[in-house]
Amino acid sequence: MGFEPDSPVFRVHEGGKLSLRSKLPLVDRESLSLAYTPGVAEVCTAIAEDESRARDYTWRSRLVAVVSDGTAVLGLGNIGPAAALPVMEGKAALFSEFAGINAIPIVLSTTNCDEIVETVVRIAPSFGGINLEDISAPRCFEIEARLRELLSIPVFHDDQHGTAIVALAALRNAALVTGRELSDLRVVVSGAGAAGVACTNILLAAGIGDIAVADSKGIVHSERLDLTPVKAELARATNKAGLTGSLEDALVGADVFLGVSAGAVGEDVVKRMAEKSIIFALANPNPEVDPAVAHKYAAIVATGRSDYPNQINNVLAFPGIFAGAFDAGARAITENMKLAAAAALSDVVSDALAPDYIVPTPFDSRVAPAVAAAVAAQARIDGVATL
Amino acid sequence: MGFEPDSPVFRVHEGGKLSLRSKLPLVDRESLSLAYTPGVAEVCTAIAEDESRARDYTWRSRLVAVVSDGTAVLGLGNIGPAAALPVMEGKAALFSEFAGINAIPIVLSTTNCDEIVETVVRIAPSFGGINLEDISAPRCFEIEARLRELLSIPVFHDDQHGTAIVALAALRNAALVTGRELSDLRVVVSGAGAAGVACTNILLAAGIGDIAVADSKGIVHSERLDLTPVKAELARATNKAGLTGSLEDALVGADVFLGVSAGAVGEDVVKRMAEKSIIFALANPNPEVDPAVAHKYAAIVATGRSDYPNQINNVLAFPGIFAGAFDAGARAITENMKLAAAAALSDVVSDALAPDYIVPTPFDSRVAPAVAAAVAAQARIDGVATL
Repeated sequence: MGFEPDSPVFRVHEGGKLSLRSKLPLVDRESLSLAYTPGVAEVCTAIAEDESRARDYTWRSRLVAVVSDGTAVLGLGNIGPAAALPVMEGKAALFSEFAGINAIPIVLSTTNCDEIVETVVRIAPSFGGINLEDISAPRCFEIEARLRELLSIPVFHDDQHGTAIVALAALRNAALVTGRELSDLRVVVSGAGAAGVACTNILLAAGIGDIAVADSKGIVHSERLDLTPVKAELARATNKAGLTGSLEDALVGADVFLGVSAGAVGEDVVKRMAEKSIIFALANPNPEVDPAVAHKYAAIVATGRSDYPNQINNVLAFPGIFAGAFDAGARAITENMKLAAAAALSDVVSDALAPDYIVPTPFDSRVAPAVAAAVAAQARIDGVATL
Repeated sequence: MGFEPDSPVFRVHEGGKLSLRSKLPLVDRESLSLAYTPGVAEVCTAIAEDESRARDYTWRSRLVAVVSDGTAVLGLGNIGPAAALPVMEGKAALFSEFAGINAIPIVLSTTNCDEIVETVVRIAPSFGGINLEDISAPRCFEIEARLRELLSIPVFHDDQHGTAIVALAALRNAALVTGRELSDLRVVVSGAGAAGVACTNILLAAGIGDIAVADSKGIVHSERLDLTPVKAELARATNKAGLTGSLEDALVGADVFLGVSAGAVGEDVVKRMAEKSIIFALANPNPEVDPAVAHKYAAIVATGRSDYPNQINNVLAFPGIFAGAFDAGARAITENMKLAAAAALSDVVSDALAPDYIVPTPFDSRVAPAVAAAVAAQARIDGVATL
């Protein structure tokens, strides 16, 4: 790794990865007068009379802003808005390729929560949805919560919920393959950042009662004095057994390891988990548990990497989620819509389940339509749909 | 006019006018790993080490934000951000079609100057240039001035400078065709809004000494007590003859009428202008002077309409101006770059000049490259180029 301008990666990035086009070629006076002045004034007037017409006659109703302040980019940390831009362009490219949704990278020169929230609110009339990306915890929780409150369009922090939805889908199928009930699993989540918190919350919502969460200081429990408000809430909602101690302590006898941190877990620990254990070691590029070691003990192994089976990849979730929200004209993405997305994603592969096939691959063309249909249907049930 | 969903205008607008695509199809693991994780991390790291690399490896270096608060949209006035969006999409489409430049509509939910400025500054790392659009005067002057001060990328309020550049180009050629020196013309500008102020300033910069400006209250002069700061500055810079009274008074014996307002001017007034007068009646859709009437007295007539010859259309300027600024990596658009753009635009038609051909048509493919070359060259002369 390094700056190698002749390498395929840099060549692919020359001039950026996105291109915008006019849907109508503007080649003569007639096309110009339809798409621009004087014709466009009729459309403006119609929307000024009834803003709901903007849904039909502008691109915003299926347009996502991919918003980042560059503070938690991939595993690289706080690298700033300019250096974050290639990731956001990539995300926008994925929206386009996997769901035919237009998306625009918006990287910010501020990392202040209040300023991020007010900036997104001010540009929101340009967009149909907000995908927050690579914003560091715990700021990401507050920013998402406040934007959800202030805006009546879908707001979705993908590092939280995208990961959580795909992990839940995979865990449902892992339970099926290993002949267990989801609700009976004893789960240990390693990491209490954006993904760890969201994974824990969605697993609780899906009916898993026995979850312990560990951060870099060990098991999150109510006696700890160093907890942020978000972690204090986690301590209340999890760890019914009242465990204290280290991640390693928590893993003794556990059915599931769900790693969304970078902390390595050794073979001696993995071997003390329950029989037929399930190991999701999602850290990138280095999984918390070496997959070769994991396979010696576990019934199911998943990673975040594309070069192993069972890749837990957010791209399985976010394109279909926004597509479904847009199809239903959803004013928000509810918790039930996330659960519905996970269920639909599980079901895509339910007739071919196997230990190394608990989630579809990213290029399975059934995924986005299946997720979108489930999300749109749930939006209507939840009363947030306008279509 | 009205809401007629079956009409061609509304049909063209269905789903919006813009479409975004990934330049690299993401069809397999390899393309995904180059354009997104893990490959993209190398590009992020390279930019984090040296931000100037963002120019080569992101799309922002040739990406324009078309920013509006929806307060002065076409002739429709303050219709708000949603209703303004079709115009901004059209503008973005023109950037793409006429100069191959990507542009994104950003419409704002605030009309407060401070908030607009700080919002644009915060999203600026996403973009290579800012095109302000349809923001009402006098707020547009302050907003542009402050953004030019705060940002080191091109900031250009097209309603001011686009109109001014094309009007100057046309006037240069009108003077040529009628055998006069530009500097000898006696000019009356009707309108002291965004376009009127910018037209006046560029005509002054081009060496025209005798200019009177009139707003809805009459001639702008230093004795008036109702002048905004911008108009007070106009009063200082213009009206050397010390005229007072109405627009009609100013037009007696004038060589040039430059209308950028909506105020109608009758035949009795037009007839009192100088011989071989030049009438630019740019109000849309209804020119200040009926073209048929204007032609009875004037040597040259231009309008803003596409159905008459000599259309003063901003699209002759802004695509080439941003293209030239981007080609030179310009940190700003200087006054000289605007003058250079006007000169280049005049020159495109200099070998075929005629009273009804003083500017190229919008679809003349020579225009954007010629303007871009002149603007880039001037950027280098002015010391604002980085390439």
